[in-house]
Amino acid sequence: MTDVKHMKWWGWGLEGVGFHFEDKPDFVPFVQKAVALDVRTPPVPPLDFDQLTIAPPRLSPSFEATLVAIVGEENAHTDDMVRVVHTYGKSIRDLLRIRRNEIARVPDIVVYPADEWDVQQIVDAAVAEGAVIIPFGGGSNIAGSLEPLPDETRTIVSLDLGRLDRVLEIDEGSGLARIQAGAQGPDIEAQLGAKGWTLGHFPDSFTHSTLGGWVATRSSGMQSDKYGDIADIARGLRMVRPGTIVELRPLPSTSTGPSVREMIIGSEGRLGVITEVTVQVHRVPEVREVQAYFFPNWKAGLAAMHEISESDASPSITRVSDARESGFSLATRKASKGISGAAQSVLMSVLKRRGWVLEDMCLSFIGYEGSASHVSYEKKLVGAIVKKHGGLGVGKGPGALYDQKKFDTPYLRDFLLDRGAAADVSETAAPWSKLQEVYDTTVAAADKAYEALGVHGWIMCHLSHSYHSGACLYFTFAFVHGDDPIAQYEVVKYSIQQAFQDAGGTLSHHHGVGVEHSPWMEQDISEGGVALIQGLFDSADPQHLFNPGKVLGTLQVTADDVAEIVANAPKAPAPAPAP
Amino acid sequence: MTDVKHMKWWGWGLEGVGFHFEDKPDFVPFVQKAVALDVRTPPVPPLDFDQLTIAPPRLSPSFEATLVAIVGEENAHTDDMVRVVHTYGKSIRDLLRIRRNEIARVPDIVVYPADEWDVQQIVDAAVAEGAVIIPFGGGSNIAGSLEPLPDETRTIVSLDLGRLDRVLEIDEGSGLARIQAGAQGPDIEAQLGAKGWTLGHFPDSFTHSTLGGWVATRSSGMQSDKYGDIADIARGLRMVRPGTIVELRPLPSTSTGPSVREMIIGSEGRLGVITEVTVQVHRVPEVREVQAYFFPNWKAGLAAMHEISESDASPSITRVSDARESGFSLATRKASKGISGAAQSVLMSVLKRRGWVLEDMCLSFIGYEGSASHVSYEKKLVGAIVKKHGGLGVGKGPGALYDQKKFDTPYLRDFLLDRGAAADVSETAAPWSKLQEVYDTTVAAADKAYEALGVHGWIMCHLSHSYHSGACLYFTFAFVHGDDPIAQYEVVKYSIQQAFQDAGGTLSHHHGVGVEHSPWMEQDISEGGVALIQGLFDSADPQHLFNPGKVLGTLQVTADDVAEIVANAPKAPAPAPAP
Repeated sequence: MTDVKHMKWWGWGLEGVGFHFEDKPDFVPFVQKAVALDVRTPPVPPLDFDQLTIAPPRLSPSFEATLVAIVGEENAHTDDMVRVVHTYGKSIRDLLRIRRNEIARVPDIVVYPADEWDVQQIVDAAVAEGAVIIPFGGGSNIAGSLEPLPDETRTIVSLDLGRLDRVLEIDEGSGLARIQAGAQGPDIEAQLGAKGWTLGHFPDSFTHSTLGGWVATRSSGMQSDKYGDIADIARGLRMVRPGTIVELRPLPSTSTGPSVREMIIGSEGRLGVITEVTVQVHRVPEVREVQAYFFPNWKAGLAAMHEISESDASPSITRVSDARESGFSLATRKASKGISGAAQSVLMSVLKRRGWVLEDMCLSFIGYEGSASHVSYEKKLVGAIVKKHGGLGVGKGPGALYDQKKFDTPYLRDFLLDRGAAADVSETAAPWSKLQEVYDTTVAAADKAYEALGVHGWIMCHLSHSYHSGACLYFTFAFVHGDDPIAQYEVVKYSIQQAFQDAGGTLSHHHGVGVEHSPWMEQDISEGGVALIQGLFDSADPQHLFNPGKVLGTLQVTADDVAEIVANAPKAPAPAPAP
Repeated sequence: MTDVKHMKWWGWGLEGVGFHFEDKPDFVPFVQKAVALDVRTPPVPPLDFDQLTIAPPRLSPSFEATLVAIVGEENAHTDDMVRVVHTYGKSIRDLLRIRRNEIARVPDIVVYPADEWDVQQIVDAAVAEGAVIIPFGGGSNIAGSLEPLPDETRTIVSLDLGRLDRVLEIDEGSGLARIQAGAQGPDIEAQLGAKGWTLGHFPDSFTHSTLGGWVATRSSGMQSDKYGDIADIARGLRMVRPGTIVELRPLPSTSTGPSVREMIIGSEGRLGVITEVTVQVHRVPEVREVQAYFFPNWKAGLAAMHEISESDASPSITRVSDARESGFSLATRKASKGISGAAQSVLMSVLKRRGWVLEDMCLSFIGYEGSASHVSYEKKLVGAIVKKHGGLGVGKGPGALYDQKKFDTPYLRDFLLDRGAAADVSETAAPWSKLQEVYDTTVAAADKAYEALGVHGWIMCHLSHSYHSGACLYFTFAFVHGDDPIAQYEVVKYSIQQAFQDAGGTLSHHHGVGVEHSPWMEQDISEGGVALIQGLFDSADPQHLFNPGKVLGTLQVTADDVAEIVANAPKAPAPAPAP
């Protein structure tokens, strides 16, 4: 049996790790107030694995034998558990389907190649067989980039890169590291850190996602303001295609026509299998610090983030939550951590006396990296801007807390799902001048969807990833679902995504397209733009063997579907009971 | 007659402007010593326009009538001068060919559309006619991206964007400006500057190149360390394709699959006609300053630039010349400008006493922008690094001189050509750890080529455009040519380009591919990478009507050609006489 570890088949992260509210005194009343849900009611856990209906593999003995010959018996799996683990990513749609035994099609075999040569042989064998290849990294995707098409009649090979997990080489003279595509976040930082380097790429999925996955879906990390999005970080790469390897040597910049590098980044397996990426790495800085600030309201927070992006300062993180998310953050603090309850009360009194409306207050985190003197210099620049916009620094405490729990949020989703609430995230990016409109339009669209569905729902947002000309708005939404949670989710998700488009945002800032966002591709990059990508895919993969249907080609949900679901929705729910 | 201005048909820039040595006392002995050429000998000017052999237009009357109906009589030209001006860019190969009456194929008609709708109609009419379309901006390209294929039998339309020269809109809240593709550098800065904004994109060709051209060839500017390469700057764009417009809305970042934006950037007209680009613009900073420094040698200069790129400083320009280019820069200063002769003598004495070998000395320019206090802060950071590497600040004087003459160098090439010397530039980018090898390999390759050809030649270099993981090395080469200067040029150019590849550099950092660099595409991005681009081109343009043969598909020169030219070269020249 391969020793590649996988997440729970029914949820996020490792078995035995989960979200707990018992040590977070404000959490119960917060959720009660937000969506009228009492999280103390006994959870309904997921079904047993045995209850799943899983079709047997569709696999010719000769093809199976070929694959086994390439990777060895212990690295080729056709058992149900491994196949199910490789069927979905971790979107709420994925979790809902698997919990409801909705598994239209699972991969027929999962193979774990040892190296690039194995990958080449697998790809060539699959092409000869006319089999579909779906590359698999950490399985954390939330855009449906991993799932087999439900009506796929050909054999499906899930190609798991998990054994390609090494940092192969650090070019210390250039700040470049050659890393295998299957390496996960913590692996990478551990191997680099042992030599004094860091990649600096910290997506929310960091603990369970891979370098290859980041590249394939155009990922961003929390410190991307400093380190860049993965498209900036990935300077060279290798991708296995039928009979050949596309090799892009690491270059700081080049003038070589349409960028093949930028065709492969975001290609989600449709052009081939990424096996290796040469990435920018940095010396671990002398100081890495996250400072927290409060702003009197969202508008002030947004304006401050914009001014910071225009200033001479260049922080590693610029993040501000709206009032709802700020409330959520404060409600999930542990009794003993961050700003203590008492200190918080004092602070709130002070702010009230200053005329702040506490319900409007917004929490912000700004990250600083570099030499101690540089961090001090930048903090001064940022401090002046925060002050100008009526904000207030509250020190490192909440920042440390943020740093510590930043990768835990996905566990909360499973917790809520056990208790009848569906939650997920949608993020976008837009020019600065459009952010307020994107925000207003999206919140209104979600609220309208909840109302139309007759459910108690919630949406909150933060700005992160500042650029010269705009920023990312990251929305988290949740609702207490009814008997058909997937249909309800589709209405909410559709409403949010369409709001992005209507207000000038893009379909996703860093979660990829998959099948979840592909319905918005034409609105996003125009019909002519879609045709260019389609031409690229068709010419590169005329048989559509490489992760077919992703990015383009599969309409998951339409406006008509949404209208029909809404028409059949129950009437509005009773008002939330007092906590 | 259209009022779009063009450069000289036989050389760079405007009629009446040229390079003069009379006010530069050190220039004559410098060239004498460098390539044994006495520039005081009477020049041989280019031939008269009447002496050119120009084939009549191949154009059906009905197609001509269609085009005239679209743009109007005064904006459709079939006269020889306009057609010749649109035949070539401004590479040394282009200048040599036109001066030798080597004009295999000229466009059959030149049209000047007024707006995007005109462009759409021209494109659709050309596609219906089966005619070739070559978009034309400022005509400054040096990679052969503009020339018709010599054996093209179809009608060729040169589509000049010169009338689309306006800044359409500034989104002041986002730092974004929507600008027409035909706008030239000075137009853009003037229109933006009137409202307090700057684009900050200053390629050497700035005075005669267009935004559309910059995007089509992946251009970089002198201040790109701060403002980014054009691929960073161009956030949205519009491109006319048959029957449709690809519209990419301006976004700071997006996760929408393979990047269509990055397919169009660098596409050199092969996918369609870029009509409009939305670019990042910046408030004109409080301070813009270029400081000069001397380093004792190239190695120290390189190391300092690398350390600056790794530091907390982020200057707008990081540039250091090798010893040869430093000598050239000092030799082209005017008697009264920059470091005066007397001051320079004093400085040199000081450096000699410090143990510097003056022949090894390297001149560096570092640019600073931002608030006065920020500039002062960054100068301190850089100053410490310069000092650590044995360098010495020499103030703003030479920097101001650099700023003032930075766009004049191309005029020098025409001056030399009138006197029997061929000069051009080749630049590359590579990781920091490979720069010294790229430098050594390239200089050796050029010197070997000169020797093999039996000519007096020269090559000099500067580092510019620093990135986290590498930098650009920009080489200028010149040689006193014989009777077949194009064949000699091919040997020198081939040697330099192959040296780039052999040492880990790319074929061009910011001059595009065209036909001049396309022979190195496979070495640069691998056979599999080339196949992906070819598939994109073929699917987007199955008839190969859009600037065919550029980027891929035309082998200009091969190793065998080079060997044959060298085999037939005369013996080595006599040693250079003393100046």
